[in-house]
Order: sequence, then C-alpha cells, then structure tokens
Amino acid sequence: MAGAGATPPVITFLSDYGHIDEFVGVCHGVIVRRCPDARVIDLTHVVPRHDVRAGAIVLRSALPFLPTGVHLAVVDPRVGAQSRRAVALRTAEREHLLVGPDNGLLMPAAERLGGVVEAVDVGASPERIQPVSSTFHGRDIFAPVAAALAAGERLAAVGEPMPVEQLRRMGLPEAQIGAGTLTVHVLRCDTFGNLILDATDDQLATLGAQLGDALAVRHAGAVHTARYATTFAEVAPGELLIYEDATRTVALAVNRGSAAELLGVVPDDELLVRPA
Amino acid sequence: MAGAGATPPVITFLSDYGHIDEFVGVCHGVIVRRCPDARVIDLTHVVPRHDVRAGAIVLRSALPFLPTGVHLAVVDPRVGAQSRRAVALRTAEREHLLVGPDNGLLMPAAERLGGVVEAVDVGASPERIQPVSSTFHGRDIFAPVAAALAAGERLAAVGEPMPVEQLRRMGLPEAQIGAGTLTVHVLRCDTFGNLILDATDDQLATLGAQLGDALAVRHAGAVHTARYATTFAEVAPGELLIYEDATRTVALAVNRGSAAELLGVVPDDELLVRPA
Amino acid sequence: MAGAGATPPVITFLSDYGHIDEFVGVCHGVIVRRCPDARVIDLTHVVPRHDVRAGAIVLRSALPFLPTGVHLAVVDPRVGAQSRRAVALRTAEREHLLVGPDNGLLMPAAERLGGVVEAVDVGASPERIQPVSSTFHGRDIFAPVAAALAAGERLAAVGEPMPVEQLRRMGLPEAQIGAGTLTVHVLRCDTFGNLILDATDDQLATLGAQLGDALAVRHAGAVHTARYATTFAEVAPGELLIYEDATRTVALAVNRGSAAELLGVVPDDELLVRPA
Repeated sequence: MAGAGATPPVITFLSDYGHIDEFVGVCHGVIVRRCPDARVIDLTHVVPRHDVRAGAIVLRSALPFLPTGVHLAVVDPRVGAQSRRAVALRTAEREHLLVGPDNGLLMPAAERLGGVVEAVDVGASPERIQPVSSTFHGRDIFAPVAAALAAGERLAAVGEPMPVEQLRRMGLPEAQIGAGTLTVHVLRCDTFGNLILDATDDQLATLGAQLGDALAVRHAGAVHTARYATTFAEVAPGELLIYEDATRTVALAVNRGSAAELLGVVPDDELLVRPA
Repeated sequence: MAGAGATPPVITFLSDYGHIDEFVGVCHGVIVRRCPDARVIDLTHVVPRHDVRAGAIVLRSALPFLPTGVHLAVVDPRVGAQSRRAVALRTAEREHLLVGPDNGLLMPAAERLGGVVEAVDVGASPERIQPVSSTFHGRDIFAPVAAALAAGERLAAVGEPMPVEQLRRMGLPEAQIGAGTLTVHVLRCDTFGNLILDATDDQLATLGAQLGDALAVRHAGAVHTARYATTFAEVAPGELLIYEDATRTVALAVNRGSAAELLGVVPDDELLVRPA
Repeated sequence: MAGAGATPPVITFLSDYGHIDEFVGVCHGVIVRRCPDARVIDLTHVVPRHDVRAGAIVLRSALPFLPTGVHLAVVDPRVGAQSRRAVALRTAEREHLLVGPDNGLLMPAAERLGGVVEAVDVGASPERIQPVSSTFHGRDIFAPVAAALAAGERLAAVGEPMPVEQLRRMGLPEAQIGAGTLTVHVLRCDTFGNLILDATDDQLATLGAQLGDALAVRHAGAVHTARYATTFAEVAPGELLIYEDATRTVALAVNRGSAAELLGVVPDDELLVRPA
C-alpha cells in the first residue's frame, strides 16, 4: 500500500448514500485531497437505506474479487450517537484494512479474511475534518481516515487502539450439517423473490447432493421439492431450484416465480434440506 | 496500450447491470487486480435489460468520442448457454479491442472502426476466474480478459483464434437514397417519443434538403410534414421536426409531443423522406 | 495543475445528465482523450433537470471539500441559444478553475472562492469538438475545455478574454441580522420537506442562540417554535428543529414530518428567526 508506487493504492467504497445527492462525490473529493493517487472503486451506493445487514452481506460476498487495499463502508443509522464507535480494522489475510461504523457492518467481511488482528477507534482521529458534522461522518471521519491509510499511514496513527473483542459482531446465521440434513437460513431475499441462503456448494456436496438431484426442503411443517441445478431453465416454470448464485452462495428460487412467496419465508428463517 | 507508460490504458465499460447491485463495482475490482493502472470509463450501465440492440447502438454512437483502448460491453441474455460464445475482437482502425458476448452487441461498433481483423473465443480463456459462474460472466470472463488486454496481452494469449466470419452479426437497417427519396428506419425510440433514425445529415444534404426546408415523411400510407431544423423551438408545439441529435444521428421529433405517438411507429419501421 | 506530475490533475464534474443515458460516460471519454492522466470526480449528475439554482447551491456547498482543480458544471437549459455564453473562470482563492454555461451556475461557488479574477468565452474555443452539436455542449465544448485546462493550458489559450463584470450572476438571497432578528430565506426544499436556509451557525450565535434554545420562526403572519438542536431525536415527532445540516448550512425540519408542509413555504420565502 505504498502511496506513490507503480501500483496506486486502492480504496473500495460501499454505502447507502444513493446517487441523488452529492454525498458520494464529496467523499471522493475528500479522499483525493488526502491521497491524490488513491484509486477509488465504488462497490455500490444503493444498499437499502440503513440496512447494515444487507451491506455486510454485500461486502463479504464482493471481497474475494477485490484488490488488497482499504475498504470503506458506511451504512450508519446511528451516526452521531455517542455510543456508536467509528473504527478502522486490519485483517489477518492479505492485509486488508476496513473502515466504517462499529455496528457489525465490517465484521462478516473481516471474518472471511481471517478475522481482525488490530483495531483502532477513529472517532477522534487526527485525520478527521473539523468541525465534525453530526450526520455526515462519511465525509468528516471515514473518508479521510481511509485516505490516510491508503497514503501509507499506520492504524496507530489514525486512531486509538482498542481491544478487538470489544468490536460489535453481526449475528448472521450459519448453515449446519448433521444427520444427513443441512440446516440453512435465509440471509436475504432479492427483488425477484430469490432466497439467498447461508450455505455453500461444498456443504451440498457433503450432504451427498449432485447436480440434477431432487432435494427435499422443509419449512414450517411443509416439504417442498427442489432440483439442484445450475440454471433456471433446468426446471419447469413454477418449480423450485437450488443453485449456486453469482456471489457463490447457495440460493433457492422458482423459475419465473418467487420462492419467497411460495414458501412464505422471511430473512433468518430456517430451512432443512436433505436428499429427496 | 502499454501497461505502465505515461498514459494509463483505458477500458470503457457498458452493461445492463444497473446501479442497484454491486455487479459493476465487482467488475471494477476484478479489472484492477489484473491491471492496476487501467483507467475504467463507465459508459453506461443502464442499457435496457437484455436489449442487445439498444446496447449496440449506444456503443456505436459513443465510440467516436472515446479514447483508443479496450471496450468491454456486456448485455448478455443468453449468459451460460453453451451455444453463446464469449469473444474478444481487434478492429482495423485505431487498434481498438472489443470484449463481450458474441451476440451482435459489438458488431455495429466494430464495423464503424473498419471491421474486425482478428477474433478469439475467450470462453475458456486462461485469464478467466474459476470456477466460472453460470450467470456472471462479466466478472468471471469478460472483465479479466479486458484487463489482461489493457495490461498488454495479445489477443492470441487470452483466447482461441476463430474465423471472423463466424461472428454473429447484428441486423440493423440502413438508410438508402434513390429517386429523390431517402428511405430511413426507426432504430429506437427514446423516453420522450423521439425517433432515432438510421440516416445522417450528409444523406439529407444529398437529398438536397437544407436547414429550414419542409420535408414530406411518408409512413403507413400517411404523409406528414416535418421541418428540417436544429432546435425544437424552430417549430410550433405539436409540429414535427427532423434534426441531427446529440449522437449525430438524424432524429424525428414533435416539439412538446411524441413523434412515436403521432406517427404510430415502432423500431424497424420504414419511413420515406423527400422534399415537400 | 501539472499535466504529468506525481499528483494527477483533478476535474470535478456536476450535471443534470442523469445516469440513464451515456452522456456522462461520453464526457469522460472526451476528457481522457485530451488529458489522459486527469482524475475525474463525479460530484453528482442527478441535479434536478434544468434547475440551475439547485446545481449552483450543490456546487457551492461541496466546494470546500474538493481538491484544487477544474470544476466542470453543466446545467444548461438554454444550450444552443446564441445569447447563452460558454465560459471558463479563474477564482481568487486556491486558483480553482470553473467551466460551464454563463447562466449563474458557477457564480455562487466562485464567490465563495474570493470571486472571479479572469474569465474567457469558450464558445468558439480551439479545444471544442467540431461540428459542435446544438444540444450536447458538455461533450463538444465544456468537457474538452476542462480537459485542456487540466492538461495545463492557460485560460487565454482556450477562449476569448471577456470582462468579469459581464458574467451573469445568480440572485441567491442572503440572510441578514438586525434588531435581534435573523432574516433568512428558503434556498431549497429536499425530498423529506426539510428547508435548507441561507443562514450559518455563526449567524445564529450572533443572534445569541445556543444549542437547546427555543427559537421563534415567523412566516406569513404565523409564529412557530423550533428547537435549536444537533439531531432530530432532540425534539418530539411532529415538532420543529433548527440545525446545521451536513453541508454546514442551517436548516429547518420537522422530526418525522415535513417542515415545508407545516409552514407552507416555497423556495425564496422569507422567515424571521428570533429567541422565543
């Protein structure tokens, strides 16, 4: 992460700021003032407003495809509250740095990178822009801290050390295998009614499932049959399929329909999957 | 297209991914990992979903204003189908490179650049990210191939050579002049009901038309009168004008109204234009 | 603003082009062709269509957070009219350059930077792309001129000198203090019904107001009571607060409601604020 080498330092940026207002552009301006050669990759700024969990899942699933660098993420419904800390974290693998509110947003991504090995509280960072506003910490705290890290500053220079175990966790469910059954949970539901689950293809393989197999999916007392497939076209319209989606997470969908409606599920619901 | 000269290599990027999801941002991440100094210009990501023809027209009309480089375009309704090839092309003029699905999307742009002089099938490119997903070839194939080309790799290094004549064409109509009549076609209709035609100002000049002239426009048996103008304000509200639009294509519009409604036309319809 | 130093030259870009069409991407292409190492920061492209005043306010409020450089702004309802000049300006402070239509859009930002010290008319700039279209001067005039300035060209090289006093002003109201009363005006109303005023925190301090105080707000004969606060949560739902918003401008809002509706105001309306 040299500030001026052949390879420009990278900052990825995720938020729920949207594109109507100038918030994202102003944060870019702040970053460039502190680290003129930083390369900023806008991951997405249309995370559903204040949905920390959705932001956390997007960040975690995008991370394996992103360059090593600083990952700035701001979904921050409690901005301005005294009890909400602002943090910067270093992860075990690939030396990624994460910057954002201490509300769990950064943690699933950090865990995928081997966990957090160093954390600082940046609420009173020497890098912050003063006076700090009560509503726009993206501009006043998070963007300048991310830019300073991209410019080569160490964590200890941008904040106060804090114990890693004091970081707020994000309570995401985890799939479990036992007794020939895979217990999965609904992480989120997309706009088409497809259900993103917390399982991986590897776990389906451990269950003994092979592409083309029929699987039994139990939810709320009802049992549905789903085909383990790679494309929607492999099942008839209206029928269920289980597939690995583009984020490499297992999902449950209905060809030309809504799995959320068919099963009547909501995020966090538990499903039991076994060979049919 | 040196990978590390004074001028960073350029990748332009067009898709129908939209801005709600993180797809565009993830593709940027993949590009930067392979070619850290690539400059990515987002042309648009709001091509109407799966509308290959609209994407092809936008790419063709934007190209004269873009730098030499790699042009990545992904509008790909048949992603994942065995019979849909993924390709990278080199054009005769200005050594542009085009990367995307082999569904005609790239061809109108390529033809404007003197045609394709070299083509490779990149479906099994050594640059692809494995395992390749069935739905997100932008991330897994097209972005890494575009980045490798921007980094200086030759076409032969990123795919298997294939005969240029096997590329799928895009059947766009073409305006014809004959017997004092210009036969034009509706390429697309924008949100205001303006009709983008396949004619140029030069063809209107060949017809003998001068700015300010009245022109007869025949469609489906009816004849309408349109003023050859440069701005909407030159005709009364509700009246037709023919003008060169911002993409330097001739268009037909109604001042404060909809030409599509007035004429009752749809894309590909034929119109006959002659001096009134 | 060296064209090829360690720090790439910056162009910020604001417009009302939106993200549906390829207009913004094409302007980026034009910029990169003229100044390959320019860094372009998209401030926002979703200024309400043709709303020069809203664009001017966004540009002015964002500017203190942006790097020194060229600021390209295009909200241009009179594009193509003979009487509308295209201009490039140099400001007194920090040597910022502003490029856009001469319709007042650039002036509030320029005034915040110490005023304009040099102006050129770029309508016939040697940098323009010919033939200049009648509707897309962002691509044909403003973007290439901004790129040339970023590449190190002087103002005199990109346009014809013109007297600074001939520039069109933007008539924005200004808050006034007198006789224990702060006279403020509504600059704009956001989508939540919050009213952005033309006053600053300093002016409220001069009035003697302290955080937590009750203030009387008179409008159209009615007197309302508003709490001077930092967060919405400090007043009960349905009640008024006065606060410094994220752009560091004083605003008037209703917690979980609409101040615009409660007071029945529109932009430019005058409000009288005094201690309650």
